[in-house]
Amino acid sequence: MSTVNSGLEGVVAAATTLSDVDGERGELTIAGFPVGELAAHATFEETTWLLWHGDLPSAAQLDAFQAELASHRTLPPATIALLHECARAKLDPMEALRIAAGTISLTSEEATAILASFPTIVATFWRLRHGEEPIAPRRDLGHAANFLYMLNGTEPDAERVRGLETYLNTVVDHGLNASTFTCRVITSTGSDLVSAIVGALGALKGPLHGGAPGPALDMVFEIGEASRAESILRAKIEAGEKLMGFGHRVYKVRDPRADVLAAAAERMFTRAGDMSLYTLARAVESTALRLLEEYKPGRRLQTNVEFYTALLLHGLGLEVPLFTPTFAISRAGGWIAHAFEQRRASRIIRPQSVYAGPRDRRWVPLGERDERDQNTKRAAS
Amino acid sequence: MSTVNSGLEGVVAAATTLSDVDGERGELTIAGFPVGELAAHATFEETTWLLWHGDLPSAAQLDAFQAELASHRTLPPATIALLHECARAKLDPMEALRIAAGTISLTSEEATAILASFPTIVATFWRLRHGEEPIAPRRDLGHAANFLYMLNGTEPDAERVRGLETYLNTVVDHGLNASTFTCRVITSTGSDLVSAIVGALGALKGPLHGGAPGPALDMVFEIGEASRAESILRAKIEAGEKLMGFGHRVYKVRDPRADVLAAAAERMFTRAGDMSLYTLARAVESTALRLLEEYKPGRRLQTNVEFYTALLLHGLGLEVPLFTPTFAISRAGGWIAHAFEQRRASRIIRPQSVYAGPRDRRWVPLGERDERDQNTKRAAS
Repeated sequence: MSTVNSGLEGVVAAATTLSDVDGERGELTIAGFPVGELAAHATFEETTWLLWHGDLPSAAQLDAFQAELASHRTLPPATIALLHECARAKLDPMEALRIAAGTISLTSEEATAILASFPTIVATFWRLRHGEEPIAPRRDLGHAANFLYMLNGTEPDAERVRGLETYLNTVVDHGLNASTFTCRVITSTGSDLVSAIVGALGALKGPLHGGAPGPALDMVFEIGEASRAESILRAKIEAGEKLMGFGHRVYKVRDPRADVLAAAAERMFTRAGDMSLYTLARAVESTALRLLEEYKPGRRLQTNVEFYTALLLHGLGLEVPLFTPTFAISRAGGWIAHAFEQRRASRIIRPQSVYAGPRDRRWVPLGERDERDQNTKRAAS
Repeated sequence: MSTVNSGLEGVVAAATTLSDVDGERGELTIAGFPVGELAAHATFEETTWLLWHGDLPSAAQLDAFQAELASHRTLPPATIALLHECARAKLDPMEALRIAAGTISLTSEEATAILASFPTIVATFWRLRHGEEPIAPRRDLGHAANFLYMLNGTEPDAERVRGLETYLNTVVDHGLNASTFTCRVITSTGSDLVSAIVGALGALKGPLHGGAPGPALDMVFEIGEASRAESILRAKIEAGEKLMGFGHRVYKVRDPRADVLAAAAERMFTRAGDMSLYTLARAVESTALRLLEEYKPGRRLQTNVEFYTALLLHGLGLEVPLFTPTFAISRAGGWIAHAFEQRRASRIIRPQSVYAGPRDRRWVPLGERDERDQNTKRAAS
């Protein structure tokens, strides 16, 4: 009998040209580019085009793509009505995004419509949830800039836009994680793109996947000043607490995304003129790494993507509940690229299960069951 | 480097006590019962309880379960409003079900709320789609009977209810098919039940999974009378057409579900007093099997579940576009049981991919790309 591999560890379920995660060397390749090379230069539209088409767009292609995305930003009234209900029910933003994203097929099943609608859904819900009027999207802004605009109602400065573009580029794809795999399984049945993306959102919602950049930031705030880092972190480690923002299932060296995001955060805070939080975070990081090596030698617990995600998104003015939806706004580009790739693979994904239950049970009429039920319980106790 | 197994064939991703598919022997076990033993006796509520709890319910447990399901049948106004939009947009019923099911979390994330809402969503959409007023669910009817009632507005006779119960029991679970697997992948991230079920619906929507009981029926109607079966089927086979309703990826002998459904159809048509369609279908089946053995010896193409599904659901008065949603009404019970089982397994499902793309690309500024683009195209041609 075959062995059960319930996590599918080590099983290779796809060949992909979209991203390569090298956990031992700490390298992430996105469609051929080292993540650091791509993330700091590209707009999110360029990165998405690259993933969807295999190469960077020409100026004309990029113009057309930007215009098409911009034309799909407005949500249909039914979706807005539903977001009002979600706000009234005080759902969390990921739940609202999953529900509203499902309705995209009322008007379109195109990839651009899906990608374009995510920022509008998130910003509309966020404002409704806080009793504010939603702000209509603007066509003249890029994907990242328009998201910040719809959240705040003011046009963001160039440094913030660059910070968000860099974040979106950095987390757009990362191998066959659970949400990307969900997207591919659904696509493998010949189903539509909206169904695949909604399934992926459902997987990303899970706390074991969507991650927790919030707590990493909480820890930095709790420490408050660099001089307190060592004593607080020591106390946490000695109490058996996990330090949020350190350690990764795949990366055994520094998560390559951490450097990209740290550099983006540094640039953004420098321009904003207040480096105190950035400096504190750097001090917390170096103290944490020193103490982790001291207490857990050889465990290779390194800074992961969440630590600087928290810092960067906080610097952008995003509140913690928006962190995972903002991640989804980026990852949607990767999911759609994987759906395209899976369509070309054209093969249904259907693993097997082994049966581990009873056999040859016989029907027991309702009236005769209570006694049997007790017998079973007795036998089991 | 590991081999890519893009369909995950032969990979065992779960141990389950829910169902066992033995394709060589043509046996299907559902929670310990041979499918024929369970399907003809149980109500759908009993089968669902069995899958969720591992044993048949006592009379008191069944009463409470029926009452709880019945209490969750009414849809919230937001969901009904959304179904109006779906009908206006002329979506197919599976798309409408996927969209509306996503909104269940506005009011509840409980398993019973999900299961109870499916028939109401499908019947409400179906009536709206045809310009008819939806019919409110009744609490005093069982799950199956109430679905037929909401579709037609008349209380169904006992034979029809038995026919539908038998169908729902027969297809409630079937190993790790793509939708069930999707449900387990989403659940494995710690996500909620509604997200998992909506993902599964997305997978079931796919034509490679949800199946096609419609065309099997079309073929029977096209043949029209038994005497024409041989000539029409011969012509189809010689033209290279696939005979719908025959052959299965897993079953190499007769699909055990076909017998259960054929018997249910026979009972139902007998009571209804018109056996002509049933007799015709039987004749088509035996002719098809004889000709398939003649033209494709050794291929072991046998009657599959779709052939008698089509006959039975047609006999129940369901139109073809309702076949897959009715399948989903049943399978939701199995999906939820798998989600419960996956939660106990408590391990994220995350396979790997191999990278097959370029490496070490360098950023090219927008203005320099057109030339390069042409070069690439030239090199590729």
